[in-house]
Amino acid sequence: MEKKDYLKREVEHIDIKSFNAIPIIEQFDKTAFQARNLARAAKIYDRMLSDKDCSIILCLAGSLFSAGLRKIVHDMIENNMVDMIVSTGAIIVDQDFFEALEFKHFQGTPQSDDNELMEMMIDRIYDTYIDEEHLRICDMTVSEIANNLEAAPYSSREFIKFMGKYLKEKDMGKESVVRISYEKNLPIFVPAFSDSSAGFGLVYHQWNRKDKLKVSIDSVKDFLELTKIKVNSKETGLVMIGGGVPKNFAQDVTVAAEILEKTVNMHKYAVQITVADERDGGLSGSTLKEAHSWGKVDEGSEQMVFSEATIAFPLLASYAYHRGNWKKRKSKNFNTLLDGKEI
Amino acid sequence: MEKKDYLKREVEHIDIKSFNAIPIIEQFDKTAFQARNLARAAKIYDRMLSDKDCSIILCLAGSLFSAGLRKIVHDMIENNMVDMIVSTGAIIVDQDFFEALEFKHFQGTPQSDDNELMEMMIDRIYDTYIDEEHLRICDMTVSEIANNLEAAPYSSREFIKFMGKYLKEKDMGKESVVRISYEKNLPIFVPAFSDSSAGFGLVYHQWNRKDKLKVSIDSVKDFLELTKIKVNSKETGLVMIGGGVPKNFAQDVTVAAEILEKTVNMHKYAVQITVADERDGGLSGSTLKEAHSWGKVDEGSEQMVFSEATIAFPLLASYAYHRGNWKKRKSKNFNTLLDGKEI
Amino acid sequence: MEKKDYLKREVEHIDIKSFNAIPIIEQFDKTAFQARNLARAAKIYDRMLSDKDCSIILCLAGSLFSAGLRKIVHDMIENNMVDMIVSTGAIIVDQDFFEALEFKHFQGTPQSDDNELMEMMIDRIYDTYIDEEHLRICDMTVSEIANNLEAAPYSSREFIKFMGKYLKEKDMGKESVVRISYEKNLPIFVPAFSDSSAGFGLVYHQWNRKDKLKVSIDSVKDFLELTKIKVNSKETGLVMIGGGVPKNFAQDVTVAAEILEKTVNMHKYAVQITVADERDGGLSGSTLKEAHSWGKVDEGSEQMVFSEATIAFPLLASYAYHRGNWKKRKSKNFNTLLDGKEI
Amino acid sequence: MEKKDYLKREVEHIDIKSFNAIPIIEQFDKTAFQARNLARAAKIYDRMLSDKDCSIILCLAGSLFSAGLRKIVHDMIENNMVDMIVSTGAIIVDQDFFEALEFKHFQGTPQSDDNELMEMMIDRIYDTYIDEEHLRICDMTVSEIANNLEAAPYSSREFIKFMGKYLKEKDMGKESVVRISYEKNLPIFVPAFSDSSAGFGLVYHQWNRKDKLKVSIDSVKDFLELTKIKVNSKETGLVMIGGGVPKNFAQDVTVAAEILEKTVNMHKYAVQITVADERDGGLSGSTLKEAHSWGKVDEGSEQMVFSEATIAFPLLASYAYHRGNWKKRKSKNFNTLLDGKEI
Repeated sequence: MEKKDYLKREVEHIDIKSFNAIPIIEQFDKTAFQARNLARAAKIYDRMLSDKDCSIILCLAGSLFSAGLRKIVHDMIENNMVDMIVSTGAIIVDQDFFEALEFKHFQGTPQSDDNELMEMMIDRIYDTYIDEEHLRICDMTVSEIANNLEAAPYSSREFIKFMGKYLKEKDMGKESVVRISYEKNLPIFVPAFSDSSAGFGLVYHQWNRKDKLKVSIDSVKDFLELTKIKVNSKETGLVMIGGGVPKNFAQDVTVAAEILEKTVNMHKYAVQITVADERDGGLSGSTLKEAHSWGKVDEGSEQMVFSEATIAFPLLASYAYHRGNWKKRKSKNFNTLLDGKEI
Repeated sequence: MEKKDYLKREVEHIDIKSFNAIPIIEQFDKTAFQARNLARAAKIYDRMLSDKDCSIILCLAGSLFSAGLRKIVHDMIENNMVDMIVSTGAIIVDQDFFEALEFKHFQGTPQSDDNELMEMMIDRIYDTYIDEEHLRICDMTVSEIANNLEAAPYSSREFIKFMGKYLKEKDMGKESVVRISYEKNLPIFVPAFSDSSAGFGLVYHQWNRKDKLKVSIDSVKDFLELTKIKVNSKETGLVMIGGGVPKNFAQDVTVAAEILEKTVNMHKYAVQITVADERDGGLSGSTLKEAHSWGKVDEGSEQMVFSEATIAFPLLASYAYHRGNWKKRKSKNFNTLLDGKEI
Repeated sequence: MEKKDYLKREVEHIDIKSFNAIPIIEQFDKTAFQARNLARAAKIYDRMLSDKDCSIILCLAGSLFSAGLRKIVHDMIENNMVDMIVSTGAIIVDQDFFEALEFKHFQGTPQSDDNELMEMMIDRIYDTYIDEEHLRICDMTVSEIANNLEAAPYSSREFIKFMGKYLKEKDMGKESVVRISYEKNLPIFVPAFSDSSAGFGLVYHQWNRKDKLKVSIDSVKDFLELTKIKVNSKETGLVMIGGGVPKNFAQDVTVAAEILEKTVNMHKYAVQITVADERDGGLSGSTLKEAHSWGKVDEGSEQMVFSEATIAFPLLASYAYHRGNWKKRKSKNFNTLLDGKEI
Repeated sequence: MEKKDYLKREVEHIDIKSFNAIPIIEQFDKTAFQARNLARAAKIYDRMLSDKDCSIILCLAGSLFSAGLRKIVHDMIENNMVDMIVSTGAIIVDQDFFEALEFKHFQGTPQSDDNELMEMMIDRIYDTYIDEEHLRICDMTVSEIANNLEAAPYSSREFIKFMGKYLKEKDMGKESVVRISYEKNLPIFVPAFSDSSAGFGLVYHQWNRKDKLKVSIDSVKDFLELTKIKVNSKETGLVMIGGGVPKNFAQDVTVAAEILEKTVNMHKYAVQITVADERDGGLSGSTLKEAHSWGKVDEGSEQMVFSEATIAFPLLASYAYHRGNWKKRKSKNFNTLLDGKEI
C-alpha cells in the first residue's frame, strides 16, 4: 500500500445541530448507571447556561479534535455556550491549528503495521492517521509566528491569540477553534504549551535565536490570567472532557484566588466525562466529590460521567444546544478584560 | 429516612421508538475511537437483520434491566429483531420476571449507607435500589412453578417457558421479555440458571422435596439445544451486551456443533458492547479477533465497542429499529424446533 | 512458521513457597492506593486462616490457570489454606484437568495473526496459546467419564469428584487441583459447568444417548450443597480472584440459607482481586460494601483490590503461606459432609 | 473527629533495598498477562542499566510520592539508576518538596465526608490526607525562592535546581528527590510547572511584582534543554510510571532533535506502567507500538504494563536494584552539560 492509500477516508466533524439529543437525554434521566449520569451532567451544563452569573470554563484533554469533535467546540464558542477554554497543545495546535492550515485527519485502524507507517511518515492515534509531513508545516508555521513577535515572555493565551490573528489574516480555518476564539475575544489557555507541535516550532525559534532575546511561554502568566477571570466572575462552572493538566489547572484557580487574598466561590457547577479510574489515585479520574475536600468544587451540582468522550460529549452538547438557554447569553470578551485593563 | 423514602423514584425503561438514532450513528461513522466503533457495530447489526439466512443471538450480561434497558429487548423480540437470547439469571429472573410480577426498581445513589439499607431490606445495585421483600416473593413464585412441574431435568429454556406461561395465564407482565418470548416461541437460555433468584426458588423446591424426585436444571441440555439451533441456521450473528457466561456459551456453540460432527459456519457477524479490558486475559473483554483463533467468530463483520451499555445499547438498537430492515423478517419459532421435532 | 514453532515456550506455574512476600506486603501496608489495599486483603486472608471457626471459600474466575496460577491453588489446598472452591468450567476443566492430562499452555503474543492460528488449530487467550487438538482429547475424556456413570442428575461437584478419581486411577496430574481436591475431600463447584470443555464432552454424551437416560448436571443441586456447607460453618470467608458467576454464587449462599429458614451469619471476611469497574453496575466490579446492603458480606473485614490477578494473587498467597497460620488448620472434608450424611 | 484524628497514620515510603524482587520477577517471566509484562519491563529496564551508551529518562505522573513511592526514586538517583526526570508539579513540588519541608501525608479513606474535610482544611487524594495549611507554607516557600532570583525566564529545571539548593542550604529533605537531584546534577523537568503548588507560589510572586520584571517559567526552554541532552546521548531509554504530559514530552524529544536537524536515534528502550486504556485514543494509554509510528520509540525493547503503579513500580525497581547492573554506571551530570557549556 502507498501512503495515499492510507490517507483516504477523512475524519469528518460531528454537527450537534444536525440531531436533537433532548429526547435521548430525557429517557436516560429515568434510568441508571452512566446513562443517568450523562443525563444529569447535560442538565447541569444547561443550568450553567441559564445562570446569568456563571462563567463557563471548557476543559479539553485527549485526542478529541482528530476524532471529529472539533466542530462541537467551534459551535459552542460561536453560540456563547462557553466563556474560556483550558486545553492541551495537541488539541489546540496539532489538531485545530493543523486543520485550519487545511490539513486533515484520516480514518485508520489500530491493527496497523506501525513500522510501515513510520517509514511512510504517517503518525497513528489509535485508529486515525496523520501525515507527518503536514505536521512539520504546522510546527514551522508556529515558528514563523514566533519570529514575528517581540522577544518577551507570553502566556500561552497571548500566543494563541496571535495564531488566531494569523488565521484571520490568511483567511484560513473557517471551523477553527483558534480562529473563532480570536474573533470572539475568548481566551484559550494551554498550561503545557511546549508539549505539542507548538513546542517544536518554539524550540526551533529559540534554537535559531542563539544568544539573542527570545519569545518564551510563561505558564505562570497563564495561571495568573485565569485567576483574574475567576476573580471577575461571580460564579463559575466547569465542563471537562477528559482529565489531565486542563482539569487540574482549572480547578486550582479557586485556590490561586484565595492566595491572592481575593474572596471567590468554589466552582459552583462541574461535570466531567472520562474513562479514567479513581482507584489509582490519579488526578484524571479523581472524583469531583474529592475536589470538594480541596475547596475547589462545590457540592450538589457536580457529576462524573464514565464514558468515552466521542460518544458522550456530542449527546451532552446537542442537548444543551437544542435546549436553547444559551440564546440569552452574551460573549464575555475575557480577552479584553485581560489585555485591556488591570483588575 | 424510612424505607418508602428510598423507594420513590422508579427506573423507567428506554423506548427506542421514541427517538431516532440514525442521524447520530451516521455522524459517529465519520469519526474515530468508540463513536466510530459503535456506528460500525450498529451497521453490522443492521446487516444481520438484512441477511435472510442469519439467525440472531442476543447475549445479555450485567444489570441491564434494572437499569432501564428491558423494554429495548422486549421491542426487539416483538419486532423479530432477535431470534434467541442467552442471558444471566439476574436479568431474566431477578429483573424481568420480577418486574412482570409488578415490582419495580428505584433510583438511588452509590454513596448510600449500606448498613442502613441492609437493615431496611433494601438491596443496592450501584445507584439503584430493590425491595428485598419483593425479591423473596419472586423467589417463591419460581418455587411454586417448580412444584407444579413433573420432577425431571429441564433445560433453563424449558423452565423459562413455564415462567412465561405462568405470566400469560395470570395476564401479568405486559412488557416482560419472559412473557413475550413465550408468546413468540423464542428461546431464552440461562446457562448458570441457579445463580439467581431462580436458584433460591429451586433450592427451596429441592430442599422441600427431600428424598422425592425433584425438578432439576440441566445446563448440558441448554448447550445441546442451542447447538441444535446453530445446526439448523445457515448463518448466525451475535449481538452481545456485556460478556460473562452468555458470551462464552453462545460463541462456543460452533465448536459444539463440530464435536457432533455437523458442518456449521463460524458466527458470521458479531458485535459486543463492553467496558471490560482485554489485558487481563479474561473472557468478557477478549476481542472477537481472538475468538477467530478458536474458530468461533468469522473475520470482517465483527466489532467490539468499548462503552458502558446504558449509553451505547439504546443508540445501537434505535438505529436498527429505525432502519426498518427487520420488517422483512419473521419469527423463527425456535422453541417449536426444539420442542416439536428432532433434527 | 509451523505449529510447533508457536507451541514452544511452556507457561510455568508460580511457586509461592519460592519467595517470601511478607516484607513486600508489610511495606505496602504503610502506603496508599492499591498497594495498601492488597496488603489489607492479604492480612484479612491471614485472619481467616487464624480464625478456627472460619470456612474459606476460594472463588476463581478468569483465565488464571493457563496463566501460571494453578500451582498456587494446588498448594493452598494441600496446606489446608482453603476449604472449598467455586470456579468456572474453563479453569477447572479446560485448564486444570487439561494439564492433568499432560497437555500444556504456551507463551504467545496478542499481536498474532488469528486467522493463521485458526488454520493451525491453535487457540489464543490474550498472550497464550493452546493446541486445540489437545482440547478435543480433554472434551472426549469428560465424555468417557460421563459414559461410565449411572444416568442421573449430578451436581458439578459430584461430577468433578469423578474427574479427580479418574486422574487418581490413571495416576495423572500431580499438580492438579481437581486431583488434590478429590484426595482431600474438598468440594469444587462450577455453577455454569456446561460452559466449558466439560460442556462439549457432556453434549457429546447426551447426543449419543439419544432417547436413553442421560447424565445431566443440575446446578440447583450445587447451590443446595454449597448452602449446606454454609449452614454447617460457624463463619465463612471469601477469597475471590476475579468476579463473574463464582463471586455471585458464593455470596448468594447466605441468602439461600435464610430461605431454607436457617440462621447463618453473613460472610464475615471477604476479599476480591479484580480489574472490573463498579461504574457500569456489573456484578464483577460491584463493591463488597454494596454486597453488605444485600446482607451477604459483613462490614469491617472486607477489601477490594483493583489489580490484575497474575500480579496480586501470588503476593497475597505467598504472604499468607509464609505467615504460617494455616499450620493449625485441618482439612474440613466437606465432600464427606455432603456425600456421607444429611444435615 | 478533630483534625488531628484524621492526620494520624503517616504514609511511609517503600524501601526497595529491604526486599529482593528477583525471585518473584523470574517466576512472573514464565507466566502470562500482566505478570509476564511486568517481568519483561523489569528486564528491559535492567538492560538499559547494562547498556553503557544509554541515558535513562524516568517519567513520573500520578500521585506517586504521596502514596509512598518517593524513596524508590530517591534511591534510584542515589545509585545512578536514572539520569534525568520528567514529572508533574504535584509530584515534585506538592509532594516531594512538601515532605522535604518536613510535612507528611496521611492514610485516610475514600469514603470520607469531603465537606467535613474541607471545613478542616484537609485535602484528600483518594485514600490519603494532606494538611492544607502545610501546603500553603509550601506555596509561600516557592514564592520566597522566586523573590530571591533575578527576574528572568527560567526553565522549570533551573527553578527546581534553586529549590534543591534551598533545601541543601537549610539542610532539609534527607530523602528528597529535589535535593538529591541538585546534589547529583541530575535534571528534573516539569513541563506544566505552574499546574502545582509551585504555580500558586509563582502567581503570588508575579502578582506582587506588579509592573516590575518578574520571574517566569519558560516551558520551551525545558523542551530545548531536554533536546540537548537527547542530542548528547548515544541511546536513550524511557521508564514511565503513569502517562500524561511527562510521557508525551519525553517521547517527543526525538522529533524535536530532528527539527533542529540533529540525527538522533529513537528511544531504544521504553517501558510504561499504567492503568490507562488505549481504546479512547488518549495519550496516557497509547501503546509504545503506536509511538513507533511517530518515530519516537524503537521496536523490540518496549513494554506496556497494565497495573496500578504502587504495586508494580516497587517490584520493577527492586528487581533492577538487586540485579546490580547500576554499579558500573556513573552520574551523567546532565545539569553541568546544560548549565556549563553549549553543545
